[in-house]
This record gives sequence, structure tokens and C-alpha cells, in this order.
Amino acid sequence: MRIARFSIDGNVAFGAVEGDPAGGPDALLVDIIKGVPFAEFELSGTKVPLSKVRLLPPVLPNKVVAIGRNYAAHAAELGNEVPDAPWAFFKPSTSVVGPGDPIVYPSFSQEVHHEAELAVVISRLCRDVPRERVKDVILGYTCANDVTARDTQRTEKQWARAKGFDSACPLGPWIETSIDLATASDLAITATVNGELRQAGRTGQMVHGIEDLIVNITEAMTLLPGDVLLTGTPAGVGPLLPGDEVAVTIEGIGTLTNKVISRG
Amino acid sequence: MRIARFSIDGNVAFGAVEGDPAGGPDALLVDIIKGVPFAEFELSGTKVPLSKVRLLPPVLPNKVVAIGRNYAAHAAELGNEVPDAPWAFFKPSTSVVGPGDPIVYPSFSQEVHHEAELAVVISRLCRDVPRERVKDVILGYTCANDVTARDTQRTEKQWARAKGFDSACPLGPWIETSIDLATASDLAITATVNGELRQAGRTGQMVHGIEDLIVNITEAMTLLPGDVLLTGTPAGVGPLLPGDEVAVTIEGIGTLTNKVISRG
Repeated sequence: MRIARFSIDGNVAFGAVEGDPAGGPDALLVDIIKGVPFAEFELSGTKVPLSKVRLLPPVLPNKVVAIGRNYAAHAAELGNEVPDAPWAFFKPSTSVVGPGDPIVYPSFSQEVHHEAELAVVISRLCRDVPRERVKDVILGYTCANDVTARDTQRTEKQWARAKGFDSACPLGPWIETSIDLATASDLAITATVNGELRQAGRTGQMVHGIEDLIVNITEAMTLLPGDVLLTGTPAGVGPLLPGDEVAVTIEGIGTLTNKVISRG
Repeated sequence: MRIARFSIDGNVAFGAVEGDPAGGPDALLVDIIKGVPFAEFELSGTKVPLSKVRLLPPVLPNKVVAIGRNYAAHAAELGNEVPDAPWAFFKPSTSVVGPGDPIVYPSFSQEVHHEAELAVVISRLCRDVPRERVKDVILGYTCANDVTARDTQRTEKQWARAKGFDSACPLGPWIETSIDLATASDLAITATVNGELRQAGRTGQMVHGIEDLIVNITEAMTLLPGDVLLTGTPAGVGPLLPGDEVAVTIEGIGTLTNKVISRG
């Protein structure tokens, strides 16, 4: 099931998206969910065309935990080594935007980069998750762009500003809940800028896989329903400029598209 | 005014603490607040002894933004340089605990350190705050302990696990709203462990002061009511062991005390 979050007539709701995305937004319907997808829920049967709603970030995370240098070829392209243990950092909830929302260039950067990433959405409160239970704490998967002010990242060795500015965490278009952990661990992932291919990799190239990452993070901290894990980016990161349109596509999930703008 | 957050008979409320802390908890009364302190509020006149309530973290922040190496003598004691620009990082809401709550040793560390810090509590949604408006976005000040797994911090160059584990962010005992920005910028701050003085400094020793930090952070991101800024720690950080009691005291605010325990 593809679970979207959207606004319609001023109300916010979750819904299950039906139809073939290849047919465009007019081919898709949203069946509105009664309640929230973090507990048992029912479909209302009330269906609206996707083209009539405004998609929002598919989840509003309390925290986004992200992992640096988790694809060897990406670490190498920036002249970095792959760390032995995952390097976890946070992106704040205030950085999260949805599909179609603008990525707004921060005033302090002249070099904002795209980083296409698989995002894991957590289904339940959890701590100290053993490997064999990781599948039980995952609601599903979505696309993420770990937008990064690369110049700021070079000078500020902790990345709160470089990776945490408002709009630095596009998520969407929806949460795909039908993919299992094994499938999620080897999906094609790409980023295009203005239609031109920039990043192309497979989630199977992660240095630390999804299970390792969730074990590692929950060894330290409690994850809450709706928290999001970004799993690192493959090689090919590069600059975005105002006016650019960046699209992250993950096989079996969908495409997350955002325009880059200057601050008004 | 000293604004505390507490539970009593299963309910959570904010209240104004009256009396002299030097007289012990029996000398203090809490006047329960109608509503929340992030908007206009009234005191109810219903007063309960502080000894009858359980103090909670004085605020539940959406995010805690913290600053590394913001006192020159502390940077030097760890063999580090002071960075030109502030190094901002996040501590997650799941790391926040209150006065009297245990600091729980994480399984992956053998070297947890105390770091006494002045915490600034944000009063309102804000972005791009100019220097002269910084005072208008501050609700007040409290004590914080930026608890750090020093061994983990050495090996994981992003600090989400080292400084973000559950219980790594004690805050309290209350928010002092009567201190102005100039006063807050030169207060005595200490940490003791089992009554022995370990850290002693003044907030005036910060490399980047409160105004600079809020300008710097809100240049990048929106702060929300209740968000917290940790402003860095003076020299004298050192290890905590299970069984230790650590106390952070800031002149004019109060004392935040927590016991260190092993994971049960």
C-alpha cells in the first residue's frame, strides 16, 4: 500500500493511493484513511483524485536520523574514508518538506547539493531492536533528498546548519508499505536534475545495511512512530541552483520532485 | 518568575515556583499556571508544596540545538581548536530528562562525561532573528547537562549517538524568566560530582555569545516555542560513573541534579 499524507479543503488526512503512477496524477485515486497509519486503520472508501489534493510530507517525524558516508563510492568522490561505525546525525523536523515543495537556498551557502536517499519510516516506539525484529518496527519506505550546503559542511564540522536548514529534508511522495526488508535492501535509486541523470546506485551498495543501522541507532536512543531514518547517498552528488528541478526516484516506491528557489 | 513543569496526581502542569530554594523543597510552593507559558497566562492561585510534585523537564523541546567548543579553555582541555564559526549539532527530544531523573549509561560507552551548560528556552516561532530582537524570542534560562559518551565521540565524528542517547540531556530545575540577556551573559556556572567541584566558569567566557548563536542558528532554521539552545560548556569536563550524583548550578537560576545509573 502507498500511504500519502495530504491536505484537501483545509483538512489534513492520510490516504491510500491507488492506480498506476505511470498514468500521471489523473490516473491515481486516494482512498482516505480513518485514523492514522501507525495503528490499526480502515480505508473509508471515500476516494478523491490525487490531482485534487496537495501532497504533504508523508510523515511528520519527531526526528530524522541520517547516516553519513554510507556508500563507499560517495565517500570516495568527496575524498573521504568510509568510517568503521555509522556516523549518525540529525535533521530537525523543521527541515522536512513534501513533494513539490521548494528547496530554498540558505543565505549562507553558494553550494547546495542533492543527495538521493532511501528513507525508512518507523512504525512504533522502539529501543534496543535486535536484528531479527528490525522488520517489525518499519512501516515502509519513501524517497528522501538529504539536501546539503556543501560549503558550510566543509567549515562547520557538525552539520546542523549544513544539513538542517529549513527545506533541507524533502520526503515523499508517499510511504510504500508493501516492500519487505530484503527487497528494500536492493533497489535502484537515482537523482536527476532538470531531467539529467546525476546519481544512480542501488541500496544494496550501502556499507551498513538497514538492519545494522536500526540496531546501531536504537542501541542509543528510542525511536518514535513516524521517525525517519535516512540511509546514505550513492555517488554522483552535485550542485543545485535556483531554478533547478531535482527528482529522486526509487524503484518500487516513486519519485520525489522539488524545485530549487532563492530566498524571496 | 521560575516556571516549572511537573506532574501531580497523574496530571502534568506548569507552575510558578515561589519561595527561597535555600530553604529546601519544603520552603517552595508551586502556583499552578492556567494554560502554557508560551502565550499569555494567568496564575491560578492554587499553590502546592514543591515537595508534593514530581518535577519534569521544564519544557519538552521539539529540538535542542547545542554548540560545540564554545569555551576556549574547554576546547583546549580536549586538545581542540576553537572553530571560527559555531559548530551546531542537535540533541533529540528523546534525550531530554528532568531534574532527579537518572542518567543511564549507554551499553556502548565506558566514558560518559558531564558538561554543565546554560540552556536558553525559546518563546516563539522565529527565523532570521536580528541581534536586536534576540531578547524578544527568549522565554528564559535553565540549567542543562550536555551528557556525552566521550569514547564514542572520538570514533563517531557526527555526535548523534555520543550526545543523543536517551537521558543525555537533563534540563531543569525550572525556567528562570526574570533574568535579562545581559545578566544571562555573565553568570557563574559550576558542575559538581558527589559534591566535589569539577567545572567552574562564567557564561561570559563563551566564544560566541547568546545573541550571536541565535542569529547564527535562525539564519538556517526556524525555532519553535519550547526549543532549547545549549550554549557550550566551560573547562573541567570529566567522567561520570554509575552511582555518581552530578549537579549543575547556575547563578540566579538553580541546581539541576541527576544520578548516574547502569542500564538495568
